[in-house]
Amino acid sequence: MTKQIYNFCAGPAMLPQDVMQIAQKEFVNWKDMGCSVMEVSHRGKDYVALAHEAEQDLRDLMNISDEYAVLFMHGGGRGQFASVPMNLLPENGEADYVLTGSWSKSALTEGRKFGQINVAADMHVENGMRSILPQSEWKLSDKAAYVHYCPNETVDGVEFDFIPETDKPLVADMSSCILSQEIDVSKFGIIYAGAQKNIGPSGLAIAIVRKDLMGNARSGTPSIFDYALQNQNDSMFNTPPTYAWYLAGLVFKWLKKQGGISAIQAINAAKAEMLYNFIDNSDFYHNQVVSRYRSKMNVPFMLKDESLNAVFLSEAEKVGLLALKGHRSVGGMRASIYNAMPLSGVEVLVKFMQSFEKAHA
Amino acid sequence: MTKQIYNFCAGPAMLPQDVMQIAQKEFVNWKDMGCSVMEVSHRGKDYVALAHEAEQDLRDLMNISDEYAVLFMHGGGRGQFASVPMNLLPENGEADYVLTGSWSKSALTEGRKFGQINVAADMHVENGMRSILPQSEWKLSDKAAYVHYCPNETVDGVEFDFIPETDKPLVADMSSCILSQEIDVSKFGIIYAGAQKNIGPSGLAIAIVRKDLMGNARSGTPSIFDYALQNQNDSMFNTPPTYAWYLAGLVFKWLKKQGGISAIQAINAAKAEMLYNFIDNSDFYHNQVVSRYRSKMNVPFMLKDESLNAVFLSEAEKVGLLALKGHRSVGGMRASIYNAMPLSGVEVLVKFMQSFEKAHA
Repeated sequence: MTKQIYNFCAGPAMLPQDVMQIAQKEFVNWKDMGCSVMEVSHRGKDYVALAHEAEQDLRDLMNISDEYAVLFMHGGGRGQFASVPMNLLPENGEADYVLTGSWSKSALTEGRKFGQINVAADMHVENGMRSILPQSEWKLSDKAAYVHYCPNETVDGVEFDFIPETDKPLVADMSSCILSQEIDVSKFGIIYAGAQKNIGPSGLAIAIVRKDLMGNARSGTPSIFDYALQNQNDSMFNTPPTYAWYLAGLVFKWLKKQGGISAIQAINAAKAEMLYNFIDNSDFYHNQVVSRYRSKMNVPFMLKDESLNAVFLSEAEKVGLLALKGHRSVGGMRASIYNAMPLSGVEVLVKFMQSFEKAHA
Repeated sequence: MTKQIYNFCAGPAMLPQDVMQIAQKEFVNWKDMGCSVMEVSHRGKDYVALAHEAEQDLRDLMNISDEYAVLFMHGGGRGQFASVPMNLLPENGEADYVLTGSWSKSALTEGRKFGQINVAADMHVENGMRSILPQSEWKLSDKAAYVHYCPNETVDGVEFDFIPETDKPLVADMSSCILSQEIDVSKFGIIYAGAQKNIGPSGLAIAIVRKDLMGNARSGTPSIFDYALQNQNDSMFNTPPTYAWYLAGLVFKWLKKQGGISAIQAINAAKAEMLYNFIDNSDFYHNQVVSRYRSKMNVPFMLKDESLNAVFLSEAEKVGLLALKGHRSVGGMRASIYNAMPLSGVEVLVKFMQSFEKAHA
């Protein structure tokens, strides 16, 4: 008997319970073949059908046009930190990066291996609250091959409420917000995401690449990171992470069954509102992000008395609320409430926070 | 009820039945935590303990000394085709590659993106049989930064029965033979392997790297492929493919329980001997590799009457013998008989081949 827990891990994150049950049931006997989906050839007709279906389901969910390739790749989000400049940045080229937190900064650090990376906007703080510099104050370069940003910062809990305007290809690291809200894919050159938050297990990255941006990978790009080559080979130039791709496909089916992105977006908004409202109405907890830019996926919060952190975490764990510890660079707590987290999980969390406050205030 | 099948897929390949049963049982409830191992942080104490234990078990099995790092990486074998030259080859440097089949050739093609790659030995055929050029006839360069070879060619069914002699770092792609027989790790600079044959599911590569070879990655090496950086971070510079790592750990425990490499090597030898003996004593089937260099993991064979190929495959499948079709570049049949294939699987295959021969000779 599995006890009811709610897992707030930022990633690898919880997956939908329904998905995990299907996967467990057919773990050793997929499609009545007598073996696991992870034990079959990626070139066999059954697996190829699965792969195509997963891609099509993602295209349906995000309304991705044929102008874009959808690639299932190795290397996670950090692999894409290198793939993007290797595919888009000419030798001695320039690109603009917008800094809003820990992950956009890591993307910039990696990008600097491959060319001149401009800080179009640096981290921004308003009255002690984390924020985002308005685009009117950004310094974008005419020479930039692309503009890179991170719409949702997993560590910092900062989220864009707008899509940057630019005539350059816009590149977005959507690792922690992909599939959580409706977006207009046509505004982007590349959208990429490590899978382990809103898609599936770690070890897979998805890259949605406008086709006209492919085919110019610089010399010395590892083949597995060459978008054009992977596209020509249906993401099977090398053996893909087949089990992760399978699980991603199950998650896409689950999302469709929930009513698609607009339906999950409404639930995500309700979850975030409930948690932020509670925090804002408490003197015991606080959040350090300007209201407009608060993440609906990753909610960092602090106890005003930080000496209670350890007991908060230990009591939370006792009642089945797992992985609430904040990122080591920020401290405090963080509740990651991705698509797979049901509203009931946030309700239980808020109730726990209330009673903890009563006991310790 | 799962029907008894034997899966001869070259990769992603079958995993030990005992491993799959453990993994299924604890799929949604690992260590009584109420969630899956794929849903927990790679930085949590439970996962870190799993990761270290898997590494230690691999070190025990292969007798790997502290002079070597053991890295769990993204990108599979083809990722290593790029990682090796990016980490070992200086700008404008040279390396020697020994060609013995399809995979060593692919490694060479990738290597040429990064420097001057010499063909130290080309593919070799003796009296119409695939073979390996004796090392006395190789052309090794004094300037080579390393010597690369593939001890077992998955597609061609060709296997080295010796370790090349060189004073340069010897780099081996052991994707399809790692853990199948005892080897002296100290003779190698780097051993790498995609996981999906003898280790676990696809999406993971293991690199065993002599520590003095690390730290010279060329500029423009993606961070996730930088051996020194990954070693400093215990293979967690980026989120690793955690579920694949977990399954690899279960496979290592299973191997230890079988009695380690020497025990599995004896079973592997018996499996290969049974199959090759049968083929050699038949006029209906034949194998095209010089006896001395036959692979004990991948056994390609042809029906003398190739018009029977389709019916052979379809009848084999009916009796639960899956994935016997040869690689498209070679044709015919191939039985991959990695560690997880029990002797009984080869017995059933040989019996089927006998009765098929009787019916169609």
